[in-house]
Amino acid sequence: MTLNPLDDRVVIQALDAEETTAGGIVLPDSAQEKPQRGKVIAVGPGRLLESGERSAVSVVVGDEVLFGKYGGTDIEVDGSEIKILREGDILAKIVG
Amino acid sequence: MTLNPLDDRVVIQALDAEETTAGGIVLPDSAQEKPQRGKVIAVGPGRLLESGERSAVSVVVGDEVLFGKYGGTDIEVDGSEIKILREGDILAKIVG
Amino acid sequence: MTLNPLDDRVVIQALDAEETTAGGIVLPDSAQEKPQRGKVIAVGPGRLLESGERSAVSVVVGDEVLFGKYGGTDIEVDGSEIKILREGDILAKIVG
Amino acid sequence: MTLNPLDDRVVIQALDAEETTAGGIVLPDSAQEKPQRGKVIAVGPGRLLESGERSAVSVVVGDEVLFGKYGGTDIEVDGSEIKILREGDILAKIVG
Amino acid sequence: MTLNPLDDRVVIQALDAEETTAGGIVLPDSAQEKPQRGKVIAVGPGRLLESGERSAVSVVVGDEVLFGKYGGTDIEVDGSEIKILREGDILAKIVG
Amino acid sequence: MTLNPLDDRVVIQALDAEETTAGGIVLPDSAQEKPQRGKVIAVGPGRLLESGERSAVSVVVGDEVLFGKYGGTDIEVDGSEIKILREGDILAKIVG
Amino acid sequence: MTLNPLDDRVVIQALDAEETTAGGIVLPDSAQEKPQRGKVIAVGPGRLLESGERSAVSVVVGDEVLFGKYGGTDIEVDGSEIKILREGDILAKIVG
Repeated sequence: MTLNPLDDRVVIQALDAEETTAGGIVLPDSAQEKPQRGKVIAVGPGRLLESGERSAVSVVVGDEVLFGKYGGTDIEVDGSEIKILREGDILAKIVG
Repeated sequence: MTLNPLDDRVVIQALDAEETTAGGIVLPDSAQEKPQRGKVIAVGPGRLLESGERSAVSVVVGDEVLFGKYGGTDIEVDGSEIKILREGDILAKIVG
Repeated sequence: MTLNPLDDRVVIQALDAEETTAGGIVLPDSAQEKPQRGKVIAVGPGRLLESGERSAVSVVVGDEVLFGKYGGTDIEVDGSEIKILREGDILAKIVG
Repeated sequence: MTLNPLDDRVVIQALDAEETTAGGIVLPDSAQEKPQRGKVIAVGPGRLLESGERSAVSVVVGDEVLFGKYGGTDIEVDGSEIKILREGDILAKIVG
Repeated sequence: MTLNPLDDRVVIQALDAEETTAGGIVLPDSAQEKPQRGKVIAVGPGRLLESGERSAVSVVVGDEVLFGKYGGTDIEVDGSEIKILREGDILAKIVG
Repeated sequence: MTLNPLDDRVVIQALDAEETTAGGIVLPDSAQEKPQRGKVIAVGPGRLLESGERSAVSVVVGDEVLFGKYGGTDIEVDGSEIKILREGDILAKIVG
Repeated sequence: MTLNPLDDRVVIQALDAEETTAGGIVLPDSAQEKPQRGKVIAVGPGRLLESGERSAVSVVVGDEVLFGKYGGTDIEVDGSEIKILREGDILAKIVG
């Protein structure tokens, strides 16, 4: 069973933001709006342009991303914490 | 007797958000703006673009969807609780 | 004597929102912003697009509609309570 | 001596809003933002579109109109109370 | 020595708003945001449109205008009180 | 060493706003948001239009300008007080 | 391991804003929103235009820039303090 997000929304499985990752990113605990890491598990069709077309979302399923903690909507699916947020709430893809 | 929503509005029959569904989605009770499940029962013609055309709504009658609890307008029709909301208030379609 | 609304405004004769209608719609009394029923009695030329054209309003004279209670402007004409509101304040057409 | 309003502004000579008119419109005294009646005495060239053209104002000199009491700017010309407001503050033309 | 206003700004030499003018305009003293009279002494190239062109300002040097008292920026040049404001803050041209 | 401002930003070397200039402009000391004089020392490529092009900034290096005191960002370069602000914060060019 | 910012975001390695630089820029300590210096280490694909195209970001990897201290999101990667912000939060490139 899966979620198909609408518009430019993305479904993300949150990863533990507290630990220092192998790649060396530390997310400071004290920050007011500290970013979180997560893995993309579903992607919407993209934002609707005035032309009536949609612009493809810039991440794909499987991407690891950084996003703001307080954006989007939290939900629990099959025991996992997931988040539905808009593409604009994703700061960056983590690669390598 | 039916409702024909205007613009990009959608009419949704709310489902019970408290119970764990067969598919495994748990909607946490404590969330400030917890999402709700519902079934689409009517769909408007879509948002008006500057070109004068309308962009088709991304859900169809019969779709099961997740939406924000506090968006839209509540109404009771023939004994059922229904909600009229805009396409932008729908987070995702639930499939499978 | 009649009113010709400007832009995408619509003139509506309000119907009693308290009673259960024949068609079965109950408008809950406790809702903060409960919708009201009404009959369209005049329709403006539509919203002006950047192209200089106007997009036709989605309701016509005689339509029965649901609309938000607190939108628009109330006025009394020939003893009837009427309301002038914008097309965007109309939630749905009631049919059948 | 006359005023030539700019943009989509309209100059209106206010009529007495308290009395029941011959045509039967009663403007309720208790309304928070009660509409007023007035006669159009000057009309601007219209709102500027992104194309650089202007869209003609929907009322002409001589039209009787309904408008919101608190919109626009009050001024006294040759002993008459007049109001300069934007086309969007006019609710409807009164005809017949 | 002169000022060349940018964009759709206009430089105006304020006239005394208190006196009843020959033409009969009385600017009521009690109004919260009473309009002022002034003479246009410089005009900018106009507002930039998305096309990259500019739309000519609707007043020319020498026009007498009505404008809101609290809009724009006050400055003193060669002993005269002048005001730099945007075209949108001008209500009307006074003619005749 | 120089600064290349981005977008429609302009780098300005502030001039003393208190003194009466040779040209006769007096900037009143009591004004809440009194304008300041300055000399343009660097100009950005201009605001990005939806077409993807940029519209050239309306001032060039060497122009003397009036601008709002509280707009933009103050910085000190090589002992001089400079300001980085957007073209829209410039009121007028001073000529002659 | 690197970060690929989305949209018109830029990843910047902050430089010490307190010291007087060789080039002579002093960033005043008392300013409410004092700008900071930094080096661009990653650049997103650019802002999405309504045409569906993206406009290239105006800085490239290696550029030294001035930006507002409170914009964007702070993060620590491999022991370095970095910042992810939007192109619009960058004031100027520092050259020479």
